[in-house]
Amino acid sequence: MTVSEIADLVGGSAHGDAARDIRSVAALESAGPSDVTFAADSKALERAVGSSAGCILVTSESALVAGVATVRVGNPKLAFIRVAERLAPRRAPTPGIHTTAVVAASAVVAPDASVGPGVVIEPGVCVGPRSALGAGVFVGEDAEIGAACVLHPGVTLYARVRVGNRVILHAGVVIGGDGFGYVFHEGRHEKFPQIGGVVIEDDVEIGCNTTIDRGSLGTTVIGEGTKIDNLVQIAHNVTIGKHCIIAAQTGISGSVTVGDYAVIGGQVGIGDHVEIEPGARIGSKGGILPGKIVRRGAVIWGIPGRPLEVFKRQHAHLSRLPDLARRVRELERRLRERS
Amino acid sequence: MTVSEIADLVGGSAHGDAARDIRSVAALESAGPSDVTFAADSKALERAVGSSAGCILVTSESALVAGVATVRVGNPKLAFIRVAERLAPRRAPTPGIHTTAVVAASAVVAPDASVGPGVVIEPGVCVGPRSALGAGVFVGEDAEIGAACVLHPGVTLYARVRVGNRVILHAGVVIGGDGFGYVFHEGRHEKFPQIGGVVIEDDVEIGCNTTIDRGSLGTTVIGEGTKIDNLVQIAHNVTIGKHCIIAAQTGISGSVTVGDYAVIGGQVGIGDHVEIEPGARIGSKGGILPGKIVRRGAVIWGIPGRPLEVFKRQHAHLSRLPDLARRVRELERRLRERS
Amino acid sequence: MTVSEIADLVGGSAHGDAARDIRSVAALESAGPSDVTFAADSKALERAVGSSAGCILVTSESALVAGVATVRVGNPKLAFIRVAERLAPRRAPTPGIHTTAVVAASAVVAPDASVGPGVVIEPGVCVGPRSALGAGVFVGEDAEIGAACVLHPGVTLYARVRVGNRVILHAGVVIGGDGFGYVFHEGRHEKFPQIGGVVIEDDVEIGCNTTIDRGSLGTTVIGEGTKIDNLVQIAHNVTIGKHCIIAAQTGISGSVTVGDYAVIGGQVGIGDHVEIEPGARIGSKGGILPGKIVRRGAVIWGIPGRPLEVFKRQHAHLSRLPDLARRVRELERRLRERS
Repeated sequence: MTVSEIADLVGGSAHGDAARDIRSVAALESAGPSDVTFAADSKALERAVGSSAGCILVTSESALVAGVATVRVGNPKLAFIRVAERLAPRRAPTPGIHTTAVVAASAVVAPDASVGPGVVIEPGVCVGPRSALGAGVFVGEDAEIGAACVLHPGVTLYARVRVGNRVILHAGVVIGGDGFGYVFHEGRHEKFPQIGGVVIEDDVEIGCNTTIDRGSLGTTVIGEGTKIDNLVQIAHNVTIGKHCIIAAQTGISGSVTVGDYAVIGGQVGIGDHVEIEPGARIGSKGGILPGKIVRRGAVIWGIPGRPLEVFKRQHAHLSRLPDLARRVRELERRLRERS
Repeated sequence: MTVSEIADLVGGSAHGDAARDIRSVAALESAGPSDVTFAADSKALERAVGSSAGCILVTSESALVAGVATVRVGNPKLAFIRVAERLAPRRAPTPGIHTTAVVAASAVVAPDASVGPGVVIEPGVCVGPRSALGAGVFVGEDAEIGAACVLHPGVTLYARVRVGNRVILHAGVVIGGDGFGYVFHEGRHEKFPQIGGVVIEDDVEIGCNTTIDRGSLGTTVIGEGTKIDNLVQIAHNVTIGKHCIIAAQTGISGSVTVGDYAVIGGQVGIGDHVEIEPGARIGSKGGILPGKIVRRGAVIWGIPGRPLEVFKRQHAHLSRLPDLARRVRELERRLRERS
Repeated sequence: MTVSEIADLVGGSAHGDAARDIRSVAALESAGPSDVTFAADSKALERAVGSSAGCILVTSESALVAGVATVRVGNPKLAFIRVAERLAPRRAPTPGIHTTAVVAASAVVAPDASVGPGVVIEPGVCVGPRSALGAGVFVGEDAEIGAACVLHPGVTLYARVRVGNRVILHAGVVIGGDGFGYVFHEGRHEKFPQIGGVVIEDDVEIGCNTTIDRGSLGTTVIGEGTKIDNLVQIAHNVTIGKHCIIAAQTGISGSVTVGDYAVIGGQVGIGDHVEIEPGARIGSKGGILPGKIVRRGAVIWGIPGRPLEVFKRQHAHLSRLPDLARRVRELERRLRERS
């Protein structure tokens, strides 16, 4: 693509050598003469001075960079995504079923789906068009996978898990394992039935080795467009809303509901039956006690979780605690002296 | 089953339409006319009013629910487990070894065991009767698996791991990986031998993607009936007692011992050489410093862990710290005014 | 080996029955007459009294143990490693490619490498001499594996991951998954390109089910000799230095740099763009806020992280907070009485 074609693609304006040929995308620091990169803010723009990039996407109000072709556009980072989709597209895997895959006769696999080596597809499974199942993926009985999904190697879907369209599951993801529920009886933990379902809606992405348990009797749901990082644990009967962000190593206990557009940091722990209302944000490493309600749009930090401004105030006071103790000793001394 | 047969099975008394035909189990909220469900307490019972369930298991002292067949029984949730074992039994996998499995000649696999596609069984392995190994399970040299175990897809047992009877290992579990032990020498970390064993006793269940390391020289032991959730880390030389509960994402460091019936919440961290006595409980996200002893029956919270009542008191004082600081300022002002 | 041969091997001095035949290594508690074990300090030496070990490695200044052959040596634990390398060597897997492996025609696999059952090697991959790929390992397009590596069963390397020499990857490790990066646009999270690389340098060891994401545009690097425990998360664009230690379940966010010889405890969380200078130590469960710099050699504890001595002081004051509050009440009472 030329710089001017890039400008057209992203709806921006080309400046400098508009005919320059751009072949790939790169980071600002390493971009060379045939690379396009971006500078999302003024700090990045400073680092761009002296760059040998072929083209830099900059903000509409941005100064131009001497000697470098630039494209001014409203959101350079978003524009960069659009260009990368063209210059560095994810290669579509070859359609067809690998000879080493084991596919049950009753399974329905779309002709243009791709089923990798060693994949196991059990009876009653349905795999939609253009979906790609990497090596060693396991799809349990009666599970359903929609269109244009990517299941990376080693993903396990237990029986009856339902996955929507354009879902990306990274290597080692396990969906539909039994929830962690027991009844204590005569000195032993007896297993409660874990026979519910899991629904992963459209456009969800789930990171490596994350685990999502099936409902015990009901259904665990991950809402449309939600993105989940690596090594996250989502327990039985959880409902996650649409377009949420859940960072790595967070754990969400049973029967929690998370509203749309919630943002949950890394290593957060959420107790069972918590209700997180839409748009709430939980800071990394925070802990929410069982049964709590986190209000719409709230920003919560700490263990146990409290509003960020309360956390900050308490933390500041905690830092000054040695000083406070010293002042109380001083007060005691003065009172003693007076008596 | 009829309602009256259910009552017989669980040792309860049938009320209402005792001849009604019940075909499946369901949650209280979604149960239909041919489903049995349960109401374990009075709050659940309130929600049961207007239910279209075919049968509700209720407590012995419970009021009846108008228009719904009920079975009064001492422990409705436990009774529900018993009914589910009949109405929704886990389907036994077909015995036999899949043609794509790779089984060493010297391995002994019970004739009624089930070995799925792509399973690898190395020399000297023993797989007991009625055990089922899901797709892609790996069983290392000289490992032993008892009777009636279920290993879900993608479980890895390193060499010489010993698994008892009726053990359930969920997808992605890894047992017997090397412990994390090194000796620092001339600027490098030299690997200490990790050549001990792992014993998983009877009736243990282990959640998805959990990892349990082998002993360095000794043995890592998970005691009978203990239940471990997803993404838990158990280090080398750990001994977990019988009938413990360990929730998701908890980490237990090397050489820790955990007594019988201990309950450990989610995301707990336990330092090395800690001794947790029987029946102790560690609240979620708690941290126990290396070498500490947690006393029998203690309830510990916080980082570092302290008795729950101490934690609560300190936390309450922490919340009032801004107020305390204000009061100290006021005292200082008053003393200043007087001098 | 005889006791005297052991002494020669480790550069120590044999005492007692130097001709005794030693066949295996064992822990101090369980060592029998043909085992060698070690006592690294005086406490261990006390436990050694009455041991039936065939040989005990002790420190140079150590007293001898009555009735047991001993070898005095500068570092008994290191000496034990050397002896174990001889008496309990890791068995080299049989070279060759298992018939069930799927190896692309364009892949180059060293003749003395070992490729286990069900392994999938994609086009352009290079596997170095004496490297062993366990059952079900997946190696994505154009990935490179150096010499003498051990990839345990179920490891997944995404495309273009580069692994050095003598690297050990435990079961379930995933390297090169997409980083967690999105741009929020018109109510949806749009995926930022995750097309960078991963480099794992020589002599790295990575524990079970740990995940290391590829760079978004740049490269994620794990430095030579660094050891990473189980279930660790390392995000995109992270650079870990040489000879670091990272304990289990720790999470390192995007674009973090960690200097050589840093030691990071278990369940630590490190925010994005943090810079940890060489030799710093982060205590288990600590949390470092995004963008912070941890100074060379610092020892940091707590959430958010602070120097250990500050943490200890604050924690001590926190413990005394109920007492402080009581004293403030007393001061208020006394002032009230006086007015």
